[in-house]
Amino acid sequence: MPITPEQRAEIDRQRSQEAATRRATVPALEAILYEPITVLDHGFVRVIDYMGDDSAVVQAARVSYGRGTKKVSEDSGLIKYLMRHRHSTPFEMCEIKFHVKLPIFVARQWIRHRTANVNEYSARYSILDREFYVPAPEHLGAQAVVNRQGRGDVLEGEEAASVLALLRSDAEAVYAHYEEMLNGREDGTVIDPSRQGLARELARMNLTLNYYTQWYWKIDLHNLLHFLSLRADPHAQYEIRVYAEAMLDVVKRWVPAVCEAFEEYRLGGAHLSRTGLSVVKRLLAGEPVTQEASGLSKREWRELMESLGRAE
Amino acid sequence: MPITPEQRAEIDRQRSQEAATRRATVPALEAILYEPITVLDHGFVRVIDYMGDDSAVVQAARVSYGRGTKKVSEDSGLIKYLMRHRHSTPFEMCEIKFHVKLPIFVARQWIRHRTANVNEYSARYSILDREFYVPAPEHLGAQAVVNRQGRGDVLEGEEAASVLALLRSDAEAVYAHYEEMLNGREDGTVIDPSRQGLARELARMNLTLNYYTQWYWKIDLHNLLHFLSLRADPHAQYEIRVYAEAMLDVVKRWVPAVCEAFEEYRLGGAHLSRTGLSVVKRLLAGEPVTQEASGLSKREWRELMESLGRAE
Amino acid sequence: MPITPEQRAEIDRQRSQEAATRRATVPALEAILYEPITVLDHGFVRVIDYMGDDSAVVQAARVSYGRGTKKVSEDSGLIKYLMRHRHSTPFEMCEIKFHVKLPIFVARQWIRHRTANVNEYSARYSILDREFYVPAPEHLGAQAVVNRQGRGDVLEGEEAASVLALLRSDAEAVYAHYEEMLNGREDGTVIDPSRQGLARELARMNLTLNYYTQWYWKIDLHNLLHFLSLRADPHAQYEIRVYAEAMLDVVKRWVPAVCEAFEEYRLGGAHLSRTGLSVVKRLLAGEPVTQEASGLSKREWRELMESLGRAE
Amino acid sequence: MPITPEQRAEIDRQRSQEAATRRATVPALEAILYEPITVLDHGFVRVIDYMGDDSAVVQAARVSYGRGTKKVSEDSGLIKYLMRHRHSTPFEMCEIKFHVKLPIFVARQWIRHRTANVNEYSARYSILDREFYVPAPEHLGAQAVVNRQGRGDVLEGEEAASVLALLRSDAEAVYAHYEEMLNGREDGTVIDPSRQGLARELARMNLTLNYYTQWYWKIDLHNLLHFLSLRADPHAQYEIRVYAEAMLDVVKRWVPAVCEAFEEYRLGGAHLSRTGLSVVKRLLAGEPVTQEASGLSKREWRELMESLGRAE
Repeated sequence: MPITPEQRAEIDRQRSQEAATRRATVPALEAILYEPITVLDHGFVRVIDYMGDDSAVVQAARVSYGRGTKKVSEDSGLIKYLMRHRHSTPFEMCEIKFHVKLPIFVARQWIRHRTANVNEYSARYSILDREFYVPAPEHLGAQAVVNRQGRGDVLEGEEAASVLALLRSDAEAVYAHYEEMLNGREDGTVIDPSRQGLARELARMNLTLNYYTQWYWKIDLHNLLHFLSLRADPHAQYEIRVYAEAMLDVVKRWVPAVCEAFEEYRLGGAHLSRTGLSVVKRLLAGEPVTQEASGLSKREWRELMESLGRAE
Repeated sequence: MPITPEQRAEIDRQRSQEAATRRATVPALEAILYEPITVLDHGFVRVIDYMGDDSAVVQAARVSYGRGTKKVSEDSGLIKYLMRHRHSTPFEMCEIKFHVKLPIFVARQWIRHRTANVNEYSARYSILDREFYVPAPEHLGAQAVVNRQGRGDVLEGEEAASVLALLRSDAEAVYAHYEEMLNGREDGTVIDPSRQGLARELARMNLTLNYYTQWYWKIDLHNLLHFLSLRADPHAQYEIRVYAEAMLDVVKRWVPAVCEAFEEYRLGGAHLSRTGLSVVKRLLAGEPVTQEASGLSKREWRELMESLGRAE
Repeated sequence: MPITPEQRAEIDRQRSQEAATRRATVPALEAILYEPITVLDHGFVRVIDYMGDDSAVVQAARVSYGRGTKKVSEDSGLIKYLMRHRHSTPFEMCEIKFHVKLPIFVARQWIRHRTANVNEYSARYSILDREFYVPAPEHLGAQAVVNRQGRGDVLEGEEAASVLALLRSDAEAVYAHYEEMLNGREDGTVIDPSRQGLARELARMNLTLNYYTQWYWKIDLHNLLHFLSLRADPHAQYEIRVYAEAMLDVVKRWVPAVCEAFEEYRLGGAHLSRTGLSVVKRLLAGEPVTQEASGLSKREWRELMESLGRAE
Repeated sequence: MPITPEQRAEIDRQRSQEAATRRATVPALEAILYEPITVLDHGFVRVIDYMGDDSAVVQAARVSYGRGTKKVSEDSGLIKYLMRHRHSTPFEMCEIKFHVKLPIFVARQWIRHRTANVNEYSARYSILDREFYVPAPEHLGAQAVVNRQGRGDVLEGEEAASVLALLRSDAEAVYAHYEEMLNGREDGTVIDPSRQGLARELARMNLTLNYYTQWYWKIDLHNLLHFLSLRADPHAQYEIRVYAEAMLDVVKRWVPAVCEAFEEYRLGGAHLSRTGLSVVKRLLAGEPVTQEASGLSKREWRELMESLGRAE
């Protein structure tokens, strides 16, 4: 359970408040507003606020004086046109704000996307909670051999057990020492009144990178889709991909027409290199082509054949 | 009148629609939502959408699970603290979207602020309207002599009349030729069916820089305040300053506590240089200080004395 | 001739100075440093400074303590890998600074790329030169009918002559009035000593959008390539495309291995949509596919067939 | 010693190479190019490359065809003018690239500055070194009581010894387990051939936040100065401030005139709030003002009196 009863009550209180607005409103997103969507063992994604909807993209593209929309089919045709031709500015006219709880090592990857606004929980100011990530056994991947930057098979048996035990015991040990150095606990109590306690900004350095942090993260739709195209991708590390997938579901609720265009023109397609394109042309002309004669490396050849559904 | 009856009707239609939302809502801003605020002779600023309110700043600063606010006085104390100590990230958690109609030469200054999202009316795709800016007589400033980058006295008499006549007649002449080259008019009619008409993307180059363009412009509160601190400043050109002032009024409606802190810690104060600070210290110590002995240039000295209310 | 003899002398003086440096240096780029490359009738692109070379990409990707390079083939393999997998950060480690002279309507498109540093010639402070763009007859495109945002056939005969005459005479007229309002000329002389002259920041609004402006423009290699992929594209307006093409030639001199990877994986390839990819798979499987049965619009079908070299 | 003999040799090799260039060159910066400047116990800052010098600021501000400089006094006057009036774009025309080795918790603060280019050492791809930060005894600050976000007195005696012992033993323990989980060591050897080893991207989560990471970090001068104004400030955490101070020394070598203007108009001055300014005016008018009657909070009053050298 990633949230406490007190937090649950705060969320419920906020969900219970309603006001009238003239702004573009999306009932399907209102339905889940503020609700934590569980990710990993203690993490979550919550939508805190949003601006705009599918029509807001159309309205901006037409620089309209009113709602800007015409028939639904024309609007969705325009959205597809914009996505296809990389006219990104109308998609920047929608904005969304998330509250995210995530392990620090995931936060370190995530923050590399610079086009968002971020407000992180301060471990200089506050004491971090005793919450750390331990992978589920089925995600305990071994180091991949070919792709030095990925995972291979799942560890099993004694090796898996030993890894999980180390992760848990180290996380617990460093937290106990964190509190000891602080001379204080999460709940604000003091351990030893005769001591001063190390500054929080220093003590935090004793925590491991699987400890959870939290932030408010706000981004426009165009940059969110760019983030999702990189992080909902199979090459992304599993622990960030699950956050991206949760947010992709949110995008579907929020701007379904944009999401459909995104899946058609970005996520679901394939990018051919110049040489890859010439291979496809030769194959279509009925010419036999081998990897050796293709001009592609073995890896590129294999990936091209896979994307064409021709894996041998 | 910057808008047509058709545009007025579109705006009224949009204003008449209301929905229920769980999001942070600001009645004082809802009251003017979509309404054009007139600026210059044909320009306007309209608020199209917004995200957040004063409390959203507090909520993000506290990385809260609920509304995040405490007593009003505590919240406004926190906002002042954040503004004073340049903790800018919580202010980035509010966002606003404007529809702006403005002369092209103003747009060229405005766009230099890179941290906004912009979607401009396309003169490659559409025909621009026959609307251009002519300064009111009281803003027809002569070239300043000391400050090469500003205005001095207002032009008068025959010189003023001549300038206004030239601006008007040139703007009208280039527009007539614009339509002639396009072989088409604003209303979509064709002038001479035997001609093809020049591409819009080329014909537009015949228009003068006082023609109006329009855009949707979206920005977070922190960057908006930065924009306003530069453009609502007396050193800014009058024609962009009036837009900044109109937006500052919007900010007051939207986030009054933030606006108050902004006026206290940014707009209304003074920045002293290292040397200027030492002058103030010496003056406070009762020491007589002259410009010559101050280490400040004449201009810096004059500006310091002015900001200290000691203009001789 | 886009530059004056005085400017030529300044450039020659700067080109004649040499110093020793330990920094990465590219002789092929040094050879053209500071030299204007003519674009359009009065415009140019000049390389003013640069940071890094092909090896700097490799060095950053390896977070190296030294030069970071291994064998040339390994380095270029790594560069290809980075480009293919959209690892963009190492390409951001190279930077280039241009001095560009360009028509204002081109500058207005160009500036929409926000990830660059720009310092523009100030028409608030200085008087603009009497230089404006007039298209060569072969670029005088008519408005395209299908693509509302482009050019069709070239205008001919009397219509072309009339357009060119209007562009020239209007540009000349507005400039004469610009000087008259300023009560001053390019060379600094005063026209009528009994007049004050309108402020420069106002008078400039009387110029047409084909007047030339200038700026220093500095950008990292990753963002430059993104700019070039959009602006060296056939869909870009001719008048900005020629600048992009000139800069692409500069990139070839500067970082040849990066440029080759860019042409292989970005410029020269094709992006297939999800539906487009399924069409290719069906064709490769020997299945006959028609536009009607493809799920693609007519336009998408035509573009796919063209990119596959199967234009009917 | 933050670097190994192999790294030292690589650096020396790179330092020994020289080439001729027409670019702006700064001998005082060339002198230390590539040299590590030690920071903290195992960290460093190295200048890898730079673009521009003091004159490059002037050249861009004048949009010059040549070097753009006039007399040294005029140039430095222009630089002061630009700094004073917040004309930031000419300062963006200089760029610098650093290689930085720093503890992860420092990197997490640093990366919040979004206007830089960053390429970090990948712990998905490589094994991190066994290097972690332990504060020197004189920097072992206790938690501050008034300022919840800072340090108070230095810990002493047994409490200090205990903290240092915990930091060291935990860092060593987690590293030993990191290697055990990886089934591999820094030097590439395998621990137990019968095991697979956990993926690097997972094992790294067991390291504490005081482990060192490294990155290439590239930024323009304007944004660097902004970074330094926040991070070379007494309110910044000591562990990032020392990096900022090392970089400020680099800036002094690189662009001495800019650095002087920065110290005069940014670092060395004071910003008065609207109320603070009115207090100063009243004091200068000889009026007695107390905190209670000032309109300032106690803390603001104390800070104002301190900056005016009137601390009671």
